[in-house]
Amino acid sequence: MNGTLDIEKFKFYIMQDALYLVDFGRALSILAGRCSEPKLVRLLLSFATGIESVEELLHEKYFKLFDIQQRTMEQSPSCLAYTQFLLAKVSLGSIEEAWAALLPTNPFKEWIDTYAGEEYSDVAQQAIDTTELLAQQLSETSFEKMKEAFIYSSRFEYMFWDSAYKQQWWVI
Amino acid sequence: MNGTLDIEKFKFYIMQDALYLVDFGRALSILAGRCSEPKLVRLLLSFATGIESVEELLHEKYFKLFDIQQRTMEQSPSCLAYTQFLLAKVSLGSIEEAWAALLPTNPFKEWIDTYAGEEYSDVAQQAIDTTELLAQQLSETSFEKMKEAFIYSSRFEYMFWDSAYKQQWWVI
Amino acid sequence: MNGTLDIEKFKFYIMQDALYLVDFGRALSILAGRCSEPKLVRLLLSFATGIESVEELLHEKYFKLFDIQQRTMEQSPSCLAYTQFLLAKVSLGSIEEAWAALLPTNPFKEWIDTYAGEEYSDVAQQAIDTTELLAQQLSETSFEKMKEAFIYSSRFEYMFWDSAYKQQWWVI
Amino acid sequence: MNGTLDIEKFKFYIMQDALYLVDFGRALSILAGRCSEPKLVRLLLSFATGIESVEELLHEKYFKLFDIQQRTMEQSPSCLAYTQFLLAKVSLGSIEEAWAALLPTNPFKEWIDTYAGEEYSDVAQQAIDTTELLAQQLSETSFEKMKEAFIYSSRFEYMFWDSAYKQQWWVI
Repeated sequence: MNGTLDIEKFKFYIMQDALYLVDFGRALSILAGRCSEPKLVRLLLSFATGIESVEELLHEKYFKLFDIQQRTMEQSPSCLAYTQFLLAKVSLGSIEEAWAALLPTNPFKEWIDTYAGEEYSDVAQQAIDTTELLAQQLSETSFEKMKEAFIYSSRFEYMFWDSAYKQQWWVI
Repeated sequence: MNGTLDIEKFKFYIMQDALYLVDFGRALSILAGRCSEPKLVRLLLSFATGIESVEELLHEKYFKLFDIQQRTMEQSPSCLAYTQFLLAKVSLGSIEEAWAALLPTNPFKEWIDTYAGEEYSDVAQQAIDTTELLAQQLSETSFEKMKEAFIYSSRFEYMFWDSAYKQQWWVI
Repeated sequence: MNGTLDIEKFKFYIMQDALYLVDFGRALSILAGRCSEPKLVRLLLSFATGIESVEELLHEKYFKLFDIQQRTMEQSPSCLAYTQFLLAKVSLGSIEEAWAALLPTNPFKEWIDTYAGEEYSDVAQQAIDTTELLAQQLSETSFEKMKEAFIYSSRFEYMFWDSAYKQQWWVI
Repeated sequence: MNGTLDIEKFKFYIMQDALYLVDFGRALSILAGRCSEPKLVRLLLSFATGIESVEELLHEKYFKLFDIQQRTMEQSPSCLAYTQFLLAKVSLGSIEEAWAALLPTNPFKEWIDTYAGEEYSDVAQQAIDTTELLAQQLSETSFEKMKEAFIYSSRFEYMFWDSAYKQQWWVI
């Protein structure tokens, strides 16, 4: 490992990340609409709106830099698997499962913070607090489901990065 | 009270009940799709399918008897309020809240049983068992929400019958 | 008619409106999450966020003025019927039906604009443009459904105001 | 190719197929709950109920034959990607997109028919008729989305079979 990153790999990642973020924002909006706790609703809505600024930034900065045409873009298999998992969880699962499924996205996005400014600044702490609050009220069975949602989402997060590195595409 | 029922009131009720049942069946299907407990899924699906036979019966027997034209039918304000409450609950609430919202429909439908035969026979017992099973696993907060869903649904059930008796219609 | 409004009627309305807005905001968020058109998503999210400022205003200004305790608040029958209709439509209907169901809320909220400042300023025009855009792409059947959603929502909007004026409450 | 199939591959496939069918049944139920066309509702509900008999058959016949313990079962990456795609589509997409996403499952399941008897017999024809009916009423944009849902679902169907053949499992 020499610490360099193939420009094509990064370009592939940036494109997939932009597509991912659109659906991640959707998932945040839907969950905001399903929650009844005002604080959580506000948090999710501000994340969803924040996502939009990150998307804009990606388009203005990286898409121009790499001359990426948005029309030619399509989610890779791992990206689509991940986004559909999130959308299915926020639509059909419990609030707690849905929240847990959204968590793995955050830590990895730190590189974005540099550019997105303060918007994501204390996101990590708020995410931890919310998780603890939600987990407290749960029966054991429901807590297991919440944990499971987090684990599967982490697996998809890993596969998303791995597939970007390998530039994996649809075989048919 | 002399124990007679205005034929127009009964006709109004039958029409609204037929329209109600279509959406009640939808609510059962959606909840079936959101549950992960196989037994509960099977129960809900068999209810949803049973609803269809009741609807057919209503159409074949009462609609012909009263010469009701299906095309002219529209949900009354109380009917629509009730069905949209159920559909919103099964789409967005927890499984337990959704289940509780569906409960008040059952006891009042006993007159249907006479015609629908065995299909609804031990529905009451299965409904009680399921309710207890679901309620057992809940935190206090979630149990309160489940109870609340049951109470509001009972209120809508009452308003549905009351509005049929009064033949209440849209004012605009 | 002497142009005066019973303070209790206004207080009843303000309380119900505050409760209504929470669910209206939810409906906006869910629809934002279901849309694929970026412009529409942004519009819905900004409405949903705007709703929050209006709620805050209601609480800070009127709730203090009238000494309303939030804990004692509960949606009236007409309020609940309306909110559940909206939530069911945004969850289960087509994007166009859902959008049409949300429309009747806007024009009546003009009094809010005075306090909410510029946030709602060109909402009316954006709403008209979006409606035309969505309606253009529809088959006749789908357009009929869109119109129907608008009509029922208008009826609920009327009933909401009428019931506030009459201070209608749950009978059981 | 000598026409033989590794018993472990078949066992892997049977297990994943059983898990897939549970979620496929859910997707059918949810779509049934979102449809307004009585014929389509009935078709989807009868499929959903039919799925249950197929599941039972799998468990009684193959699971015993291969001594598969249900408790140890977990969806493979390709299986989960496919099921979540279907669940997200039936929850959030249009009726037509959702229907199109469910189509690729059918043709490949012919081997099941042999055992499941008449239940699936004219499924293919009904599926074709329904598809044509739904597609007829669509604008061009909506038809494109319907086609797209079918294509992605077909890709996932391919990946499901391919991954079973390769016995692909989670890497983390």
